[in-house]
Amino acid sequence: MMPVRGGYAGDTARKVSFEAPRKFTTVFKSHLKETFFPDDPFYDFKGKSLPVKAKKAIQYFVPIFQWLPNYKAKLFLYDLLAGITIASLAIPQGISYAKLANIPPVIGLYSSFVPPLIYAVFGSSKYLAVGTVASSSLIIAATISTKVNPTENPQLYLNLVFTATLISGLIELVLGVFRLGILVDFLSHSTITGFMGGTALIICLHQLKGIFGLKHFTPHTDVISVIRAIFQNRKEIIWESTLIGAIFLIFLQLARFVKQKKPKLFWVSAIAPMFVVIIGCVLAYVWHAEKHGIAIVGELKKGINPPSLKNIDFDRKYIAAPLQAGFITALVALAEGIAIGRSFAILQNEQIDGNKEMIAFGLMNIVGSLTSCYLTTGPFSKTAVNYNAGCKTQMANVVMSLCMMLTLLFLAPLFSYTPLVALSAIIMSAMLGLIEYDKAYHLFKTDKFDFIICMAAFLGVAFISMDVGLMLSVGLALVRALLYIARPTSSKLCNILDTSLYRDVEQYPGATDIAKTVIVQIGSPIYFANAGYMRERVLRCVRDEKANRLQGDDVEYVLLDLGGVSSIDMTGVETLVEIRKTLEAKYIKVVLVNPRLEVMEKLIVTNFIEKIGKERVYLSIEDAIEGCKFSLSHERYL
Amino acid sequence: MMPVRGGYAGDTARKVSFEAPRKFTTVFKSHLKETFFPDDPFYDFKGKSLPVKAKKAIQYFVPIFQWLPNYKAKLFLYDLLAGITIASLAIPQGISYAKLANIPPVIGLYSSFVPPLIYAVFGSSKYLAVGTVASSSLIIAATISTKVNPTENPQLYLNLVFTATLISGLIELVLGVFRLGILVDFLSHSTITGFMGGTALIICLHQLKGIFGLKHFTPHTDVISVIRAIFQNRKEIIWESTLIGAIFLIFLQLARFVKQKKPKLFWVSAIAPMFVVIIGCVLAYVWHAEKHGIAIVGELKKGINPPSLKNIDFDRKYIAAPLQAGFITALVALAEGIAIGRSFAILQNEQIDGNKEMIAFGLMNIVGSLTSCYLTTGPFSKTAVNYNAGCKTQMANVVMSLCMMLTLLFLAPLFSYTPLVALSAIIMSAMLGLIEYDKAYHLFKTDKFDFIICMAAFLGVAFISMDVGLMLSVGLALVRALLYIARPTSSKLCNILDTSLYRDVEQYPGATDIAKTVIVQIGSPIYFANAGYMRERVLRCVRDEKANRLQGDDVEYVLLDLGGVSSIDMTGVETLVEIRKTLEAKYIKVVLVNPRLEVMEKLIVTNFIEKIGKERVYLSIEDAIEGCKFSLSHERYL
Repeated sequence: MMPVRGGYAGDTARKVSFEAPRKFTTVFKSHLKETFFPDDPFYDFKGKSLPVKAKKAIQYFVPIFQWLPNYKAKLFLYDLLAGITIASLAIPQGISYAKLANIPPVIGLYSSFVPPLIYAVFGSSKYLAVGTVASSSLIIAATISTKVNPTENPQLYLNLVFTATLISGLIELVLGVFRLGILVDFLSHSTITGFMGGTALIICLHQLKGIFGLKHFTPHTDVISVIRAIFQNRKEIIWESTLIGAIFLIFLQLARFVKQKKPKLFWVSAIAPMFVVIIGCVLAYVWHAEKHGIAIVGELKKGINPPSLKNIDFDRKYIAAPLQAGFITALVALAEGIAIGRSFAILQNEQIDGNKEMIAFGLMNIVGSLTSCYLTTGPFSKTAVNYNAGCKTQMANVVMSLCMMLTLLFLAPLFSYTPLVALSAIIMSAMLGLIEYDKAYHLFKTDKFDFIICMAAFLGVAFISMDVGLMLSVGLALVRALLYIARPTSSKLCNILDTSLYRDVEQYPGATDIAKTVIVQIGSPIYFANAGYMRERVLRCVRDEKANRLQGDDVEYVLLDLGGVSSIDMTGVETLVEIRKTLEAKYIKVVLVNPRLEVMEKLIVTNFIEKIGKERVYLSIEDAIEGCKFSLSHERYL
Repeated sequence: MMPVRGGYAGDTARKVSFEAPRKFTTVFKSHLKETFFPDDPFYDFKGKSLPVKAKKAIQYFVPIFQWLPNYKAKLFLYDLLAGITIASLAIPQGISYAKLANIPPVIGLYSSFVPPLIYAVFGSSKYLAVGTVASSSLIIAATISTKVNPTENPQLYLNLVFTATLISGLIELVLGVFRLGILVDFLSHSTITGFMGGTALIICLHQLKGIFGLKHFTPHTDVISVIRAIFQNRKEIIWESTLIGAIFLIFLQLARFVKQKKPKLFWVSAIAPMFVVIIGCVLAYVWHAEKHGIAIVGELKKGINPPSLKNIDFDRKYIAAPLQAGFITALVALAEGIAIGRSFAILQNEQIDGNKEMIAFGLMNIVGSLTSCYLTTGPFSKTAVNYNAGCKTQMANVVMSLCMMLTLLFLAPLFSYTPLVALSAIIMSAMLGLIEYDKAYHLFKTDKFDFIICMAAFLGVAFISMDVGLMLSVGLALVRALLYIARPTSSKLCNILDTSLYRDVEQYPGATDIAKTVIVQIGSPIYFANAGYMRERVLRCVRDEKANRLQGDDVEYVLLDLGGVSSIDMTGVETLVEIRKTLEAKYIKVVLVNPRLEVMEKLIVTNFIEKIGKERVYLSIEDAIEGCKFSLSHERYL
């Protein structure tokens, strides 16, 4: 073999780097950093003195120290308005979702008092409004009801809800501290769209109980059970309740419609639920609703959150249910909260730190579970209202929290007249906005597999159960991810006329072949899961070329473009050895083009470079082709 | 925005292809083909007439029609010699491994009669010798013993072994027919190395029972239980047995050593087991071994395989055990058999078809399970001996099969005198060769993560159990694969001096920055699992650049080199939108370079290209930089 590179243009700059591999610890450290600290949170610390570093660290971990010192009175006006607005939303939502979770309505009010205060201290999103959410409320109800009947044993049931909240908070905290935000990455947008849609559908159907004023219903959460329950209990339907419910629902939907048409009138939709609750209370009080068979919330004690440490219950007999509920709600609430926080930050071109958000969510749920609150996160509706109402900092959460305190201390008993049908209408209206038909249709149009992942979540949740739907969808998404690994794209490259560019011939059909040479681009890591496939793919490509080319144009060189191969494992290296052996036996030479850092290190350490010869490795396809040409002509003259 | 491309060199060839996306069915078909038919098995059929096609199809599915018509008498001499050699190995191995599986020794002999005949018809590897293997024998024993005690209820136990074999065969057949060879891809070389090593260690230790002549032992398969069992029963140790065992073992190891030193003397090691068995039989017969406490095989009935359809037992009470054993052994046997067939094919620069091999393995095990055979595959030792003995075609398996038939018909009773200690020595010696210290050390040196995957299998098998070890190792390998997805490499590119090449600045530290421009190379599919990370990575890179560059050299363009991105999903596209929004807010323009076919289609269909503008997409980094320069200077003069 001639040292062909020397023969080409004498261009010393075009040398491939055969640097000795970096030390294991260096590589390992860098991998660790990329895996757990991709956002490089401490980059601002470099070259600072110790006191500055300490101050920065405190500001990093407790964001209130960052924004409060710079807080101005002017900002407070905005936050005050936004805070009062979201408090007016928090009251009906709190009561409704607590009802959804089968716990006393006052717990829902408690949950908008303590957690927002904690979030204001530790949270990093300016626009996120803390509160309870429908999906997690329903998951808690569905999971814990299987162990304990909420009507027969309400105290034990409530204790398990607090326990689930504590477990959720601990999981969130641990995920945040160990920077495992990576787990949330595996919930794709498509999964979340489908899951939210399915959950919203189920919740909607469950609200028919309240709208129709039914006394008996099903604890199951699938579409078929719910429809069957309505049909079986159709004689219990109370027309007064149904009528009032329909009117409320139409009113709320109209308010939502107004907001969609004229975004400036957002406050119409924002105060509509509070309006419905007040009208409902007045009606119920004046008209003596109970006499007409319309149920009301009933007894709402005055006073702020009592402590609930003694309620936490780790009894072995029941622990499976809160553990399951805690785990699922932790992931769902994190995914929802972080996604929502991120969406609104992007609107203002800001960044939020997912891992820090997890710590804040974790702390607020841990403290919450000890002060009679259940699971809270950043609900979409509340956050959107907060943002639209012009909030500027986390102070809006503090204002909402104080409003809730005043409500709990003085106004709570007034809300005891709220008719359940009003709450059902509020929940139903909120849920109807969460079924995103257009997004699903967009997925169908643009990516069939994403659509399947989305529908798996939707149908799984609607017809089987929430956890099955979620697992089905995540499983499908993982199968797709593994298929990406197992069957990566690789393509034959050809020369684009009059240029030195080489591109996929399928994409640029005008590109032409190079004499005696086949260029194969490998477009992904090579490792155990795809090594066998890669070998087939390269050999097949060479075989096809041999069959198609004219006589006299035998394939003599195979150029493997490794520019897209970001890593390689031992099985991958062995596969390269196999490919080389097979091809050399057919008198075809293998040439490597542009191996990247990690790949080159592995090829050096396994002696592959030594075996193939350094003169068979080039920095670009152009160089490689020049080198091969030189070597071809040289051989001819020998 | 100016149409910058027009300003650059008027080079019409360097146009990016904005072809309308291919139809969904076209893409789907091509994906399906790449996933299940990566080797394009029917490529030879194109443009042939129907009868030729039919003939080719038969030859494809039943390889014997391919090689038998061309078979020559000269080849038969080689195959005859090789066949007799492997038959001499099959007898002691068959008896030993049957003992390992706790089934009557004659079943081991049966298993080398029928399955090789089936393989000769359907198998595509010339060198593969069919037989029973130690690892699968032990897995069967370990799994089925948990349900049925082989000494208390030997008939039921045997029936379940046949059932497990049938299930294994069916799984192999189905995997082959549906071309799911992809599943075997997920067993990496490292996993197999560790798994084989761990299994070999366990089997070795189990043989100490035979060597020491113990009567009581443990059914558990972990190192600690085995060592404890030896220690507890140390008073049963028979010195005569131990002495003979040690001598046999030393002899066998010496024979192996001779082969290693002088590969030409391979037959010494090949006939050594048969030699040990004959010496053992003679000794036992002459010396009345049983009187000295040395157990022999005992009763080996004359006659060929009886049918065993009636033995197949799908009783609900026990079915879990054969199902589990069948599933694990199917995968392990396939991985071993295909890997071994492939390794020897490569030595001769030939290809074998994994899916076809699966069908052949499946058929031979299905037929085997109905003719009193248990699980067979292509064992390494036998195949290596076959290859070294000079076999030329699958005829060697036929010869071995006929030799076994003669043995079963006439010689079987002679082997009933075989002392168990001789079998233990043979198994132990074979196993010692399977613990590949050097390969593990090589892994440690070259790839720490592969080493961990290998050790997980080894330690898991040795100290817990086979299936746990296997699952642990495959699980770790998958976590690694998912990490590859979730945290792909992306790097900052710089210009290599005096060239138009742009390479990773970490790999080529001499490369220089481009004024006002940052080039980020993204090196993997962009989708839900890594989209968040990608965003962080790109934005972090831009932030670092902004901080490091001199004044006057503000970053104005970010070039995303998508040449290495083989696919993108909806979450990925949304991430690109987010990146663009965030950067444009900082007055930084995003430019795409060389999107590949699938990515371009997705970007067109989701209107991303329309939003960003076609003039912001370039075919190469060079073009993009020229374009940006032109636009920069143009803006300056406006």
